[in-house]
Amino acid sequence: MSEPNAKQAKTTTVWDDATSKKFFDHIESKKDEYIKRLAEAVAIDSVSGEVARRPKVVEMGHWLKAWIEKLGGTVTMKDIGKQTLEGQEVDLPPVLLGQYGTDPSKKTLCVYGHYDVQPADKSDGWDTEPFVLTEKEGRLFGRGSSDDKGPVLGWLWAIEASQELGLDLPVNIKMVFEGMEESGSVGMEELIRAEAKGFLSDVDCVCISDNYWLGTTKPCITYGLRGICYFFLSVEGSTKDLHSGVFGGTVHEPMVDLVKMMSTLVDAKGNILIDGVNDTVAPVVADEHKVYEAIDFDIQDYKRDAGLVGDVPHPSKVDTLMRRWRFPSLSIHGVEGAFYGQGGKTVIPRKVIPDQDPEDIFKKVEKHVLAEHAKLNSTTKVSLTSEHGGKPWVANFDHPNYVAGRKATKEVYGVEPDLTREGGSIPITLTFEEATGKSVLLLPMGRGDDGAHSQNEKLDVSNYINGIKLLGSYIFNLTDI
Amino acid sequence: MSEPNAKQAKTTTVWDDATSKKFFDHIESKKDEYIKRLAEAVAIDSVSGEVARRPKVVEMGHWLKAWIEKLGGTVTMKDIGKQTLEGQEVDLPPVLLGQYGTDPSKKTLCVYGHYDVQPADKSDGWDTEPFVLTEKEGRLFGRGSSDDKGPVLGWLWAIEASQELGLDLPVNIKMVFEGMEESGSVGMEELIRAEAKGFLSDVDCVCISDNYWLGTTKPCITYGLRGICYFFLSVEGSTKDLHSGVFGGTVHEPMVDLVKMMSTLVDAKGNILIDGVNDTVAPVVADEHKVYEAIDFDIQDYKRDAGLVGDVPHPSKVDTLMRRWRFPSLSIHGVEGAFYGQGGKTVIPRKVIPDQDPEDIFKKVEKHVLAEHAKLNSTTKVSLTSEHGGKPWVANFDHPNYVAGRKATKEVYGVEPDLTREGGSIPITLTFEEATGKSVLLLPMGRGDDGAHSQNEKLDVSNYINGIKLLGSYIFNLTDI
Repeated sequence: MSEPNAKQAKTTTVWDDATSKKFFDHIESKKDEYIKRLAEAVAIDSVSGEVARRPKVVEMGHWLKAWIEKLGGTVTMKDIGKQTLEGQEVDLPPVLLGQYGTDPSKKTLCVYGHYDVQPADKSDGWDTEPFVLTEKEGRLFGRGSSDDKGPVLGWLWAIEASQELGLDLPVNIKMVFEGMEESGSVGMEELIRAEAKGFLSDVDCVCISDNYWLGTTKPCITYGLRGICYFFLSVEGSTKDLHSGVFGGTVHEPMVDLVKMMSTLVDAKGNILIDGVNDTVAPVVADEHKVYEAIDFDIQDYKRDAGLVGDVPHPSKVDTLMRRWRFPSLSIHGVEGAFYGQGGKTVIPRKVIPDQDPEDIFKKVEKHVLAEHAKLNSTTKVSLTSEHGGKPWVANFDHPNYVAGRKATKEVYGVEPDLTREGGSIPITLTFEEATGKSVLLLPMGRGDDGAHSQNEKLDVSNYINGIKLLGSYIFNLTDI
Repeated sequence: MSEPNAKQAKTTTVWDDATSKKFFDHIESKKDEYIKRLAEAVAIDSVSGEVARRPKVVEMGHWLKAWIEKLGGTVTMKDIGKQTLEGQEVDLPPVLLGQYGTDPSKKTLCVYGHYDVQPADKSDGWDTEPFVLTEKEGRLFGRGSSDDKGPVLGWLWAIEASQELGLDLPVNIKMVFEGMEESGSVGMEELIRAEAKGFLSDVDCVCISDNYWLGTTKPCITYGLRGICYFFLSVEGSTKDLHSGVFGGTVHEPMVDLVKMMSTLVDAKGNILIDGVNDTVAPVVADEHKVYEAIDFDIQDYKRDAGLVGDVPHPSKVDTLMRRWRFPSLSIHGVEGAFYGQGGKTVIPRKVIPDQDPEDIFKKVEKHVLAEHAKLNSTTKVSLTSEHGGKPWVANFDHPNYVAGRKATKEVYGVEPDLTREGGSIPITLTFEEATGKSVLLLPMGRGDDGAHSQNEKLDVSNYINGIKLLGSYIFNLTDI
C-alpha cells in the first residue's frame, strides 16, 4: 500500500492515447538500432561464474555506466568486495547504483536487473554462437538476450525514447544493476539492506524485470513467489559401510529406516502428511479462485512441456496452478546411499503463504521424522538439518505499482496480463520489499520458452521491442503511487 | 554324498597319532622357509584388476607352475582368452590345471585357489609396503598373504612335507588355480563346466581354501553360502528432470513413488514383507538350532567389529547367526535421484535355502512392487529388472569330505571346528558342485580379521603354519570318500 507522502508523482506529460501511440511508434522505428545495441551487450560474455570471464562482467558494467551517463544519469560503481572462486581471490563485480532524474517534487521508482549471464559454449548444444546475437525467424538467439540484458537495456531505451520525444517522466528513477545474480548474488542482500537508509531511502516503488510469461502468447505480471525449506536428513547405522551379504538381516539398516521415514512425508498426489504444515496455509478465499480461472494455462501443454510419461494428479487448471504457486509441495530429491558420493538432497517443502515461516516448518518436519523414527524401534541415529530457507512472497496486485504495470500491458498488448506467481525463488524480491517497505512488482519482458540458463536462449524481437514500450508505458503510468 | 565307486582311497601310510605328530613337527621346523616362500609370492604384485599388472599375474602363475613341477606334478596353463580392460584388449591370465599323483587305484581330490590379488598401495593407508611381506607380532602383513596365496601355497607345502617324510597320500590331487578371482573370475565358470567331462571327470571331492574363520580364535569349516537376488527398480515420471520449485506439487514424483514402494519391502527388524518370499524358506528343524548354539560367536564383538552406533535388532546369538546365514535378508543399497550419476542400487533379498530360486524370488518381488505401485494411483512408469542372481548353497557336513576336514581341524587345533556358512557369495563353489556332482568343502586357513580386500591384509604365522598342517591332515584323512 502506498502511504501518505508530501510528494506527488508529477509530470508535464499527459499520457493519453496519442502520446502513447507516438511513444510506441518511435520505439518501433528504432527496432534495428535497439537490436544492434543488444548485440553489443550480448557480445560481452559477462559470465560471473567463471574467473577468466570476470573482467568481462566488469566490462559489461562499464558499458552500462557509459549509457546511463550518456542519457544524463549518474552512476556509482559500488565495490562489494572479493570472493574466493576456483581457488583464487577475485573481485566481485561492482553493483551499479544509477540515478536518472533528481526532481525533489517527484516520487522515485527503483528498477533492478543484472548484467551478468549464465555460462554458455557452442559445444553445449547451441545452434549458434552464444555470444553472437543471431536473429532467426523473429527471435534473437544469444546468452543473456532474455536473462537479463534485454530487460536491463529496455529501461534505458525507454528513458532515451522519452527524451527524444521530449516527454517528461512522472518519477525519478534509481537503478540497481548487479553483476553476480547468476552466481548467488553474493553481497547483494547486505548492500541493499545497507542502502535502505541511503541510496534506497527515498524509493517509492520497485520494479524487477527478470522473469518470464507463464506461456508464450499471453503477457503476465507476477505478484508472488514460493518460499523454500531445504532439509538434509541423515540416518547413521554404523561407523563404516557393511557388506550386505555378511551383515544383511542382522543390523538396523539406515537405508531402510530412511525410506520408511521419507515414505510418510507426502502422499502420491502431493499432499503433505507432516502434522501442522498445512495448518498455517491461508485458506483460499472465494474470489481468489477467479484469479486462477482467468489465467491462460493449458494442462496438455504443461504436460507436454514437462515431458510427463503419464497424467497429472490434479487435472483441473485451478488445482494445478494453486498447487504450483500457493500450496506447499514436498519433493524428495535424492538419497545418498552407501555407494554414492557426497551431496544427497532430501525433503523440500515449498509454500507461498508469507505467515508460514521456514523455521516453523523445520520444527514440524523435525518433529515428524523423529516420531516416525521412534515408531521403527530402530537404533540408528537420525538428524535433520536445515540447509537453507527462503521466505515466500506475495504482493497486493491492486497496488498502484501493479495497476501501472497492468495498464502498460493493456496498452502494449491489448490484453489484461495474467496475474501469476513463480515457483522458483527470486530472493532479491523479498530483500527489496523488506529494505524499502514499498511495493515490488515483477514485470517480465520475455516468454516462458526463452530458455534462460539453457542452450539457445532467445528473446523474441516482438518481446524485446514491446518490452521497451511496456517498461516505458509502466513508468508513464506511475502517477498514483 | 559319495556314490559307489570301484576305486578305494588307498595309502600305504597309516595316519596315526605318531605319524601326524611327525608330520606336524616337520612343518613347524620349516616355518622360516615357508614364510620366506610366501614373501616371494607376495612380492609378485599379481593384481588382476590393473592392466599394467596383468603380466605380474601371469608371472605368479609361472611361479606356481614351477613349484608344482618341482614337486613332481604336471601343469597345463589353460588359456581362457582375452577381455577388454581400461579400453584395451588384454589376455586373461591362464588357469593352472595341476595334477599330483596319477595312481588309477586312488580317488582324486580337487583343490581350488586363486593366485591373483586385490589392488593395494601404501598410500591407501597401509602401515607397511603391501607387496613386502612384513612380520609383526606373529602376523604376516602383505597383500594376498591370506587371500589367497597363503592357502594356495599351503597345499604345495603339505605335499612337499609328505614327500620329505616319505608319506604316501591316499588320493591323487588335481589343482585348479585361477588368476582372475578378484576380477569376477571371468571365464572360470565356462572352463569348469567344459572340464566337467575332461580334467574334472574323475574328481571325487573338492576342497576350496579361500574363506575365513568366523572370528579370531576358533577354527571353522564352511558348509553353506547365501545366494543373491539383485534388482534394479526404476520409476519414471517424465522425460527430463523438472525444477521442483516450478513443478513440485503438480506432477507425480518418481522419488516419492519409489520410497513408498521401497518402504513396503522389509520392516525395521529385517523381516521381509514381500508376499511368498518367506514361504519357501525351509523350516528350522530342532537339531539345527544346536549347530548354531555350538558356534563360538559373541554379539558384542560383532557389534564392535561392525561399528554399530546402536544395538542389533536380534540380540540372541542363534537369531543373529540364522538371519545372517539361513534366512533371507533384504537390503536397500541406494537410490539414484535426479541429482545423481549412474549406478543406483536397489533391493537385494538374500537367502539360503537351495530350493528357493532367484527367478521365483524375482517374480514375487515384481508382483509386490507392481501391486504397491497400483495402490498409489500414480501415473509414473515402473519396471523391475534382475541385475544378477546367485543360487544359495548348502552342503551335507556329515559327508566324508567334511568329516576329513573336521578330523584335521581337531588334530591341528584340538577343537571341533565351528560349522559355519557365509553371507557373501563364492559362486565358484556352486559351479564346482554342479560340474563334478561331488561334495565341496570350504576349509579356511585365515582368521576373520585378516582384512582380505582391506588395508593391512595379514595372515597370522600360526594360521599359516597350522594351515599347512590342516590341509595336509585333511588330505591324509580322505580315506573314506
